Amino acid sequence: MTDTILHPDRLFPPDPAVRSLARSLYEDIANLPIVSPHGHTDPQWFAQNQPFSDAASLFLTPDHYVLRLLRSRGIAYDALGVPRKDGAPVADARSAWRTLCNHWRLFAGTPSELWLAHSLSRYFGIDQPLSSQTADQTFDAINARLADPALRPLAILDAANVEVIATTEFALDGLEHHKAITANGLGARIRTTYRPDDITDPDAAGFAQNLQHLSDLTGENTALWSGLIKAHGTRRAFFRAHGATATDHGVPSAMTADLAGHEKQALLDGALAGTLDAGQAEQFRAQMLTEMAGLSAEDGMVMQIHAGSHRATDPWLQATHGRNLGDDIPTRTNFVDGLAALLARYGNANNFRLIAFTLDESTYARELAPMAGYWPALMVGPPWWFHDSPNGIRRYLDAMHESAGFHNLAGFNDDTRALLSIPARHDVWRREISGFLAGLVAQHRITRSTAAETARWLAYDAAKSAYRLP
Amino acid sequence: MTDTILHPDRLFPPDPAVRSLARSLYEDIANLPIVSPHGHTDPQWFAQNQPFSDAASLFLTPDHYVLRLLRSRGIAYDALGVPRKDGAPVADARSAWRTLCNHWRLFAGTPSELWLAHSLSRYFGIDQPLSSQTADQTFDAINARLADPALRPLAILDAANVEVIATTEFALDGLEHHKAITANGLGARIRTTYRPDDITDPDAAGFAQNLQHLSDLTGENTALWSGLIKAHGTRRAFFRAHGATATDHGVPSAMTADLAGHEKQALLDGALAGTLDAGQAEQFRAQMLTEMAGLSAEDGMVMQIHAGSHRATDPWLQATHGRNLGDDIPTRTNFVDGLAALLARYGNANNFRLIAFTLDESTYARELAPMAGYWPALMVGPPWWFHDSPNGIRRYLDAMHESAGFHNLAGFNDDTRALLSIPARHDVWRREISGFLAGLVAQHRITRSTAAETARWLAYDAAKSAYRLP
Amino acid sequence: MTDTILHPDRLFPPDPAVRSLARSLYEDIANLPIVSPHGHTDPQWFAQNQPFSDAASLFLTPDHYVLRLLRSRGIAYDALGVPRKDGAPVADARSAWRTLCNHWRLFAGTPSELWLAHSLSRYFGIDQPLSSQTADQTFDAINARLADPALRPLAILDAANVEVIATTEFALDGLEHHKAITANGLGARIRTTYRPDDITDPDAAGFAQNLQHLSDLTGENTALWSGLIKAHGTRRAFFRAHGATATDHGVPSAMTADLAGHEKQALLDGALAGTLDAGQAEQFRAQMLTEMAGLSAEDGMVMQIHAGSHRATDPWLQATHGRNLGDDIPTRTNFVDGLAALLARYGNANNFRLIAFTLDESTYARELAPMAGYWPALMVGPPWWFHDSPNGIRRYLDAMHESAGFHNLAGFNDDTRALLSIPARHDVWRREISGFLAGLVAQHRITRSTAAETARWLAYDAAKSAYRLP
Repeated sequence: MTDTILHPDRLFPPDPAVRSLARSLYEDIANLPIVSPHGHTDPQWFAQNQPFSDAASLFLTPDHYVLRLLRSRGIAYDALGVPRKDGAPVADARSAWRTLCNHWRLFAGTPSELWLAHSLSRYFGIDQPLSSQTADQTFDAINARLADPALRPLAILDAANVEVIATTEFALDGLEHHKAITANGLGARIRTTYRPDDITDPDAAGFAQNLQHLSDLTGENTALWSGLIKAHGTRRAFFRAHGATATDHGVPSAMTADLAGHEKQALLDGALAGTLDAGQAEQFRAQMLTEMAGLSAEDGMVMQIHAGSHRATDPWLQATHGRNLGDDIPTRTNFVDGLAALLARYGNANNFRLIAFTLDESTYARELAPMAGYWPALMVGPPWWFHDSPNGIRRYLDAMHESAGFHNLAGFNDDTRALLSIPARHDVWRREISGFLAGLVAQHRITRSTAAETARWLAYDAAKSAYRLP
Repeated sequence: MTDTILHPDRLFPPDPAVRSLARSLYEDIANLPIVSPHGHTDPQWFAQNQPFSDAASLFLTPDHYVLRLLRSRGIAYDALGVPRKDGAPVADARSAWRTLCNHWRLFAGTPSELWLAHSLSRYFGIDQPLSSQTADQTFDAINARLADPALRPLAILDAANVEVIATTEFALDGLEHHKAITANGLGARIRTTYRPDDITDPDAAGFAQNLQHLSDLTGENTALWSGLIKAHGTRRAFFRAHGATATDHGVPSAMTADLAGHEKQALLDGALAGTLDAGQAEQFRAQMLTEMAGLSAEDGMVMQIHAGSHRATDPWLQATHGRNLGDDIPTRTNFVDGLAALLARYGNANNFRLIAFTLDESTYARELAPMAGYWPALMVGPPWWFHDSPNGIRRYLDAMHESAGFHNLAGFNDDTRALLSIPARHDVWRREISGFLAGLVAQHRITRSTAAETARWLAYDAAKSAYRLP
Repeated sequence: MTDTILHPDRLFPPDPAVRSLARSLYEDIANLPIVSPHGHTDPQWFAQNQPFSDAASLFLTPDHYVLRLLRSRGIAYDALGVPRKDGAPVADARSAWRTLCNHWRLFAGTPSELWLAHSLSRYFGIDQPLSSQTADQTFDAINARLADPALRPLAILDAANVEVIATTEFALDGLEHHKAITANGLGARIRTTYRPDDITDPDAAGFAQNLQHLSDLTGENTALWSGLIKAHGTRRAFFRAHGATATDHGVPSAMTADLAGHEKQALLDGALAGTLDAGQAEQFRAQMLTEMAGLSAEDGMVMQIHAGSHRATDPWLQATHGRNLGDDIPTRTNFVDGLAALLARYGNANNFRLIAFTLDESTYARELAPMAGYWPALMVGPPWWFHDSPNGIRRYLDAMHESAGFHNLAGFNDDTRALLSIPARHDVWRREISGFLAGLVAQHRITRSTAAETARWLAYDAAKSAYRLP
């Protein structure tokens, strides 16, 4: 076998008969359009379609997966060119790229290696592993190639056959880039998503000012619970006008609540006064999730909950460099008790759909599969973040499908900030579902034709259906 | 390979050499008698031996696995013919059957598909997947065939080679059907099980009346803790006289307690007065488990604990249709702290045996295997409910055997309400243990002859031994 | 295939191509020296180099893995020759050995069977499974062979190619045997480890006396927090002088704290007075872990945390026979919240290294891999205790490497009291990493040459590097 991690049969099961089945299933779905209904690409890229600047700012400094693993082996973020809060100088792009190349072996077997190798090969013709020897050469080659119009953001979407992609913006965002995107006729292809954490989490920076800003934008009295909810409704409509079909909620736990009006107002009063304790802040977020479910039941926006990330666990990193740089760690999550209040209230509402994401794999077979296999409103999102990986996908499919079936799964999300990695990530998913379904066929658990239908569902249709994309 | 999920090699590992080993192990155990020591079939079937009425009431309306997955995709229970509490009309049997057939593809790869396909093929000669096209035809064919004496309940037991089966009755049950069964000479084959949740759980409907009823039945003063325990002893003897060798306890957590006499009486006083809070109700159940262990140590009945199901999570369903229809969801369970009090008290008692079942797979390798591999009294029940499935069985065996060995496992339970699925479920278990043991042989971890002995143990002897069946 | 569990291809994946790859990877690492940086062998063996006395005291009575599984099937510890606290007579060695042989089939498929079979074959030429028939014969053969100089402890180290081994001693230990070892010129090969649970856990037997003893040894006032920490520093230096490069901390949870000075002193006052409640005792241990991290950051000793064992769960066993005999059971562990205080304080300290071990496999992919893949100070120890087994190693590698990479893993620890099992345990690890890496190569996820480098890293270099062994 060819000694490369981009072998055409990569990720397929080793048994020859199963591999052959996997390959044939994969061939039918490999070139389906990409539906990317949740992610964190920058809408400015698509609005302005400017070239990316250099290899390091493309592949290294924005990628917390890569940064964190280098840091874990003692490499300072300064040496990787990660900007500091105090503005002190950090390594320049070339130097940072060299550091990455010098330590490339640390990524052996990780999804980052696979995604990056795929991107380097596909877009830059670089087929050898990064190394100290080739650091300068690859840096220069990448930079030179970035001037090519084929590597502008919109050309990348075309080349990757991206049918539709959603970015994620906070509730107070003016959606300037999405306005430009819509003006360019791309509104149906490049959509936004309503992510109101800045106004639903009393622990968010500047929460009281955010609510004042919300009031200014909507004309509602956001110091009243009812006004706050109305203001959400206004912003959600604004986001829908820019293509949003979904909302997204990043919460430390899956806790929801269904409180009385005076309790809700008391929480809001405390949140504005900054007097909530940790338990009350969780109650606030918990009630807000239920309110968002209620609005979704009215306006039809698909609600996503990404629960269970303990954010910003390293105080030193927060002080020196800031957020989203690798120190967010998963925690145990309880969906059964957590979602009870929300589901009791809206779990049977006709128009309501909730897609739940977890970082706690022990909830797959124990909680989410049984729940999604019962509640009409609930679907399960794909493996997320640390679990968006070959093994992670296998554990997910193994634990999920027997109780949830395949039709309560929401297909795939790449959930990435790294534009070039999108086809790589979808390709991993498509290879993994092909391998998994081939295994079921080989054990006579489904037929070959069911496997083909299911592969197509999981690779393409499920995401469109789950997110109500036309 | 033949494109059917009832292929003779179904579920076996794909590698040709391992598959061949698995097949040979399976052939030796495939036709062993079925021992079904825990389940929920209706004793009336065996007492009266009447034909089943129609396809829907046989395969659909009593099967919460099937109902829930249809409902999860938006199909109303009314359309599936599930009776309503308000008596309003629901779909008739033929219409419900059509709805099932129309959505059959939702079950692709689920154990329900496998069980149902197996039953349809074996008993009704239906070898094609259900579909809209064949709905009426299969409905009529099944109904016609149900008149055949070969499809009466006792004939089904014979055809399936069921050596012994246990039903499950609540503590206040008069065991009328078991009396008839015993009178018919079938008492050793069709046994009952003592399941006293109605008188051990203060949250049970009509708890105080239940205790009064218990007093009437036994002549004990069930308002006194000592009288209540004596009354249990009387009922347990009554159940043993109708074949019971085991008790069963469905509890939301595995919590046990070992309280002083005055604390126990205070809990009972509160339970009768309806004044226990949630924590006290749990204490009551916790103490009751320890009391049941004490009685088991005296009378030799094998104690089963089915822990960790959060019951009746959908208030709407409870209001409209009722219990056991798919809205019970597993939760995290803590056996180490939970069983501590009970095991400290009775874990070394000579005559005591406890079989623990979990819905929390994270407890397999972390808690139950180490505990069963230490405590003489403790065995682990087979994968239960959502985990009674090919993947579930694989995860169970993988996580369990290294620390518990094979001889602390209690063999298989089908735990079903669906009579016709019993052979299908035991067949899945037998195929899976054959495949698993074949894998161990292929890796030279056990010898072929040990695999054969272990397969027989897990398929047949373990259940008889664990449940003290003669 | 040969019908023996010591087949040369044992544990390798069944697929012929993958097996061939695994075998070739294994051949390159099979004979690397053994690095055993954490374990519980008795330093007296190496100091005095006396022969072992008999088969039972070598293989049975000190091995809690073996004892517990026999006990779980109803065999009394008295019958296994485990000494009683009351001094009452127990079975003699020959009788105990017979009991083991009579029940050998209970170990089918367990790691104990594999380790023992490996030891019996390698050191005693016994290649048949133990059985009733051969009990006396094997007992006599083993005893006869024990007189051979080749079976003295130091000869066993030589034959097993043990480059370095660390024992574990409590903080108050005089290290008499290690003094003799050092005097014999073996100090660099046979090292101690600082395990201060006796003076860091207020629940330890004789805690107040232990602190007085510590004061006597060091001249520090151990009733003052600052004096207590200084005394630790003195003892750590003493241990380093006897080869220690690491400390080890056995704690029921992973909880750490970072309290103010007066809070620490108040905890110490309470601990000495014996007035701490359970929560305060946990706070004491939690703060102590952070103090130990601080000392490690100063003196460079590698800190190990073995968290999550609920010790001594059977009061009867504790009363009759005592500790470490099989009744310790894993519990759920929370590393994210638990280690937060310690890591916030020392997670970025240059010289600090923490190796975390868990018995809760659900933390592998959810907590430890993400944490080790971020924090420079943190590495993950190998699968421990119940999870040091073929399946346990597979689950560990599967869940760990994608987020942690291979270079945040600390290689292998045998962690054993059973000297003869050391090569067997390292052999299982080496076979399993070979099989796992072969699977990655077969799926083109790493190259053959990366697999070879990684195999060598995990088999040998990682342990030396992680434990700062020269």
